[in-house]
Formats: sequence, C-alpha cells, structure tokens
Amino acid sequence: MEANKIITLTTDFGLVDPYVSEMKAVILSISPNARIVDITHNISKFNIRMGAFILASALTYFPKGTIHVAVVDPGVGSHRRPLLIETNKGFLIGPDNGLLILAAEKQGIKRVHEFTNKKLMLNRVSNTFHGRDIFAPAAAYLLNGVAPLTFGPQTNELNKPVFTKVIKTRKSLFGQVMHVDDFGNIITNIDLDTSYQDLYGKMLKINMSSSKLILKFCKTYSEVQLGELLVTIGSHGFLEISANQNNAGKMLNIQSGEKITVTVPSQTII
Amino acid sequence: MEANKIITLTTDFGLVDPYVSEMKAVILSISPNARIVDITHNISKFNIRMGAFILASALTYFPKGTIHVAVVDPGVGSHRRPLLIETNKGFLIGPDNGLLILAAEKQGIKRVHEFTNKKLMLNRVSNTFHGRDIFAPAAAYLLNGVAPLTFGPQTNELNKPVFTKVIKTRKSLFGQVMHVDDFGNIITNIDLDTSYQDLYGKMLKINMSSSKLILKFCKTYSEVQLGELLVTIGSHGFLEISANQNNAGKMLNIQSGEKITVTVPSQTII
Amino acid sequence: MEANKIITLTTDFGLVDPYVSEMKAVILSISPNARIVDITHNISKFNIRMGAFILASALTYFPKGTIHVAVVDPGVGSHRRPLLIETNKGFLIGPDNGLLILAAEKQGIKRVHEFTNKKLMLNRVSNTFHGRDIFAPAAAYLLNGVAPLTFGPQTNELNKPVFTKVIKTRKSLFGQVMHVDDFGNIITNIDLDTSYQDLYGKMLKINMSSSKLILKFCKTYSEVQLGELLVTIGSHGFLEISANQNNAGKMLNIQSGEKITVTVPSQTII
Repeated sequence: MEANKIITLTTDFGLVDPYVSEMKAVILSISPNARIVDITHNISKFNIRMGAFILASALTYFPKGTIHVAVVDPGVGSHRRPLLIETNKGFLIGPDNGLLILAAEKQGIKRVHEFTNKKLMLNRVSNTFHGRDIFAPAAAYLLNGVAPLTFGPQTNELNKPVFTKVIKTRKSLFGQVMHVDDFGNIITNIDLDTSYQDLYGKMLKINMSSSKLILKFCKTYSEVQLGELLVTIGSHGFLEISANQNNAGKMLNIQSGEKITVTVPSQTII
Repeated sequence: MEANKIITLTTDFGLVDPYVSEMKAVILSISPNARIVDITHNISKFNIRMGAFILASALTYFPKGTIHVAVVDPGVGSHRRPLLIETNKGFLIGPDNGLLILAAEKQGIKRVHEFTNKKLMLNRVSNTFHGRDIFAPAAAYLLNGVAPLTFGPQTNELNKPVFTKVIKTRKSLFGQVMHVDDFGNIITNIDLDTSYQDLYGKMLKINMSSSKLILKFCKTYSEVQLGELLVTIGSHGFLEISANQNNAGKMLNIQSGEKITVTVPSQTII
Repeated sequence: MEANKIITLTTDFGLVDPYVSEMKAVILSISPNARIVDITHNISKFNIRMGAFILASALTYFPKGTIHVAVVDPGVGSHRRPLLIETNKGFLIGPDNGLLILAAEKQGIKRVHEFTNKKLMLNRVSNTFHGRDIFAPAAAYLLNGVAPLTFGPQTNELNKPVFTKVIKTRKSLFGQVMHVDDFGNIITNIDLDTSYQDLYGKMLKINMSSSKLILKFCKTYSEVQLGELLVTIGSHGFLEISANQNNAGKMLNIQSGEKITVTVPSQTII
C-alpha cells in the first residue's frame, strides 16, 4: 500500500470564486501526486465554531497521516499566528483562532509549530490570502517529507476559544446546538455512548430557549410519521433533533449556538 | 492502459456538511488509488426520481467498469435493502428504493446482490448514514477486486417505482418533465431518435397543465431571438423546452413531474 | 517529477446537474491519469466577463503545461468557433467569444487553432453541449500528446470583446468593478504595483456611480473596526473595496461592471 498522500481542505471560501482552485494549484505545483479532498468550502463566512465542528466531525474517517488544511480566517494578515499541529493521527494546518482546536483535541496533540520559514511560503505572501500563500505550500511540502521543525519553532501557546462543554447530571444533559445541517438536522454537542441505548423508544423532554418539546428517542427516522420530529443519535454519535423527511431546523427555527437541555420525565438518565 | 479505477458519487447531501468527504475518506482508506468523481450532491432532498434521472444521464459517458454509488435514501435504517447491481457496463450501489433503476435498465441488469456481509461494512454502522458506513466501503472493496457474491446473496426482487413511460402515437408524443436544470432547460423523458430530424424548423404544439405553447423546433438556441422559448433535442437525446439565454423553467413556472403532450399541427409526427 | 497532467475546468454549469461530471467522464475515458481541478462551475449564466476574469485570476498559480478548459457558451451550436490557444505557459480551450482572452493575453499567445478534426471529438456532437462533446475530448487528447495542429488549422482571428482598460493619470485611477466575490469583496481591474505601497494608511477618495466614499487604504482588514469599509490590495494584486468581516458588495449594493475612480485628496498618486 502506498503512503497516504491525502490533503484535505476546509474553508469558508464558497464555490463561486477561484480561491479554492488556487490553493489546489499551489499544492499540485509543489507535490504533483497529492490527493486533495474537499471537506467543505461552505463554512458560513468567519464562523470559526462551525468550521471547527465540521473539521472535527470529518477527520475521524481519514487514514493516519492525513494533512488537514483549514482556513476560516477573519484575522488574516494581522497578528494571529499560522500554525502546524502534529497530532497522534496526522497534521492540522491553519490559523491560531480556535478553528483547529476541536480536531486537535480529538486526535491528541503531540507538538505545535508556528510557521516562520519564508522559504516554505510563496514568494509573495499577500495580506489577505494566507490559505494560498502560506497554508497550501506548507501542506504540500509536509507531504513531500519536509520535517515539521523546518517550518518554524515549537510553541506552547494555543488559542482556545470556549466552546460550550456538555454537562451530564443524573437527571439532565446540558449542551448546545453545534450545527444545523443541510437536511435540517439539529446537531448538538451531546455525545451519547452505548450505555444510553436502553433509552430507545422513550419520550425525551427537550428544552431550548424557543421550544419545549417532548420527542421520541428513535433509532431511525421512519419510526415516526412522515414530517414528524424525533430525537436520534446522528452519524457522528451526537444527539440530534430531526424530522422524518422534513427540515427540523426550519420547523423549529433553530440557529447554531442555542443551548439545549434534555431530560427523561420520571426517570434518571444515567 | 491501467484498469478503470473510477467510483462516482450521486447524493442529496449538499455541499455544506462533511458527509460527502466522509464517504471519500472511507473509500480512500480502503482503496487509496480510487479515482472519485462527483456526479452531483445537490439532488433535491429525498427526490428519488431526480436522482434516478441524473444518474442515468451521467453514466453513459463513464468507461466500462465504473462503480456508481448513489444515495438518496429517505428510508435509511429501516427495512429497505442495500443493493449491488451488476450491469453490462459496470456496477451500481445504493438503496433499493428506485434510485438505481433507470441507470440499471439503461445499462442492462446482469445480477442483483443484497449487502449482508458485515465484514465489508464499517465496524459501527450508524442508523442514519449508510452512504458512509455500507455503500462507500462496498465500492472501495469492489474496486479492490472483492467478488460481488462476497457482499451478499443474489436476489431477484428489485423495487421499481413507476416513472411515467413515454407514449408515441402517429399524431402525438405523451411524456413527462423529468428535470428542470440549472439553466432552466425543461427536460422531458421524450427521446427522439434521428428519424425526427426532418421536424427541425417546424412549429410544435406543446400542451402542459399550465401552458399551451407553439414553439419552433430548433437545432441551436440562437435560432430564436434572445430570451425567446424554443424546443430542441438536449445533450442527452431528450426533447427539451429551452430559451435563448433565458430560464425557460422560470418563464413557464414549470416543475419536474408535469405531464407534457407534443403534436405537430396538420401533420403526423411519425 | 512526473509531467504535468492537470486539466482545469471553468464553467457556468452549476453543481446540480450532471454536466460537469460528463466532461470529467469523457476526459478520464481518454486520458485515465488526468488530474482534473475545478476552478469554478458557478460563473453566472452566460457571463463571459466574469468567466474571463476568474479564469485569468486562477491560472497564475497552475504549473507550466496546464490545460485550461472554459465553457461559458451562450452561442453554442451556432457559428462561433471552438478554439485551442497555445500560450507561453500552457493551453486554453473553449469558445471564441472572449472567455479565453484575458487568460491568453496574461500568459502570452503563441498560436491559435480552430477545432475542425471530427476524429478528436465525440462520435455524436450535440448542438447544445460542446463542453462535453468537443472541448473535453480535446483536452484529454492534448494531454495524451496529440499535437495542436492535429486538432485543426491555425487561425489569426480571435474575438476580443472590449473589457474596460484601466487609465492611470498623475491624479486619478480610472477602472471598473470586475467581480464581487462571495465575501463581498469588490474587485476592480486596477492593478497596483509595489510603487503604490507608500499610499498605505492614506485616505483614498472612491467615486462610483452610486457611492462617493473616503476610505482608508489598508494592508489588512483588521486595520479598521469590525464591519467598516476599507480599500486594500487583494490577493491578485488588484485594488479592492472590502469590509472587516462584513460584505462590502451588499453594503454598497455594487454590481460587477460599475465604473470606479480613485483619487488621493491633495496629492498626486504617482
């Protein structure tokens, strides 16, 4: 089996402009055999939390050694640092603004480097597009075997924005809506392991600022009628509020970021 | 020439979420040399007819042996079966809900297998994302040379939703709007072979529930004035209602699924 | 290092329909090792200027020898000619309607050929989809080493639509808005070289038909308050009007094509 040659891209650049293709052009100029996989380029503009959540969701499925480049970078050109994070499973490249932190903690951080070596950047580094001028060439050189330390010195600082942590008590689960996906699935940060499987079929009480609901905890969408709301464990292991062939996000008018409390009436959860 | 290593993807997942990239990650983990080509990920949510039509349109142009994975799967996790269809030109992988049927009949069905072998699925199969957990690994193992029978037993059942058939009489063609494309071209299921070429330049009478039109049958858009409607044979050989640099679908407010009748005033068509 | 095997695609086909995938299927059928990179498929329908601008922006970053296919082709099937342009850096393939001209002039034109050799097209050439039937196979055969002259004879004619040229006087810069990108950056055709760097920090007077503004000329977005407008040099070296984490295009309601004049109050610019 050949060595893993995968570089992934996660950005808020959208799919209209030439920016994504310029990053790919830079990568392929330096490392012609790179396998580039788009995670998404439709992160909401400047939405670091959404970028962090989607990157952390996707990377579980990539093979060891994959290099992930992420660019949601409202502070580009200012003093925020460009970082290379070595994890136990691969590499993360992007700005030091919290975008990489969920992914890094999920994989386990080994070392963090700050990019300073201008020889491994494009000749002219623009003030507005480090994705192309710093991060893309870094990923390609790393794929070619350049050692992490060559890019710049190790650092111990790492900008960690406070994403809400889940709290689990005997009676309730307290969390947050991390993302409403394109199907309208309302994805929370409440991770339920297999010990919760005896809750299937029970009715759960869901409290959000704008909605108080009692919904069935289902294994599959088809356990409720067409169009009806339900609670399920999504494909990444998080509690989701969904609807059977309907858009739960629109039905409930829920935005990412909302707080959520889950209880099981007349019983402790754990 | 190297063996065909192409896997295509057709889904309703959209391009915001990480789901498509997770399928690619799974494929490349198992079969690092796979060439993955996106057909589209913007099938309207749960629209099996649109998915079936677009998949059948695209696959004509792929080389023999191509593996096509399609996921428009409102019944995911319920009793609908995951299928592998061997055709005379390649392989189709997806749910048994009609999504694969137009493509399968176009290529000629050789054998149908039901996926049952859990060793060829991801370790944990979620209830909501068989695209990643069952179909993606199946495509990758198939590319690696695993025999179809290894995935599961042959089956003779195949879910065939009734898509409207075309009826051609001496005076009229009766069909249906299959898809309104991004340019607003109204694509029907009325296939016209070369025997119809002497109709070029004639005026055709088009009856739809909401519109009765008389339009010129043109070879190219530029045969009518800018913005005007016309009838033409689209790039897949089907009768289309289009407009010269304008959006016919919006001009006529036509939805996919509408019935359509075509006649040539004062003459038989065939 | 292996030879450059890159083919890029720039179209107005969108990402819903199967059209882009059919071009890729044709390319990979003829040249299985091609590396296909999407520049964009979201050029506004029939917008040749936008296509020309984005293609010319992106191709700077691709390695020598890259083959660029572009299809924004309202005149498809009519008398507009299909062209192959050899430049000093690579190849451009597309319709003779101005789409290729900015890219061609940027790279330097060596020779122009008209496609006439039907043996290097698909067997059946539709009247509405030359991207798939003529341009895609041409790119693939070219990648396989077929000589440009084999596709068709040289021609000296080249359709050059008049895109507005920049005028620079001692007091003012006169240009045009070429593109408003997905972030809302208002990108002009005013290219500023390094001799303008001593303008950084100065206030610039911007006149457009609908807005008269005095804005700070900044190196980075973060030099103004959140949400505020600024002028900067974008990542392609052109003067842009942007906003710090806000959408300047929507704030000013500016469309591509608008004229713009830039002056520095009480001082000559050059």
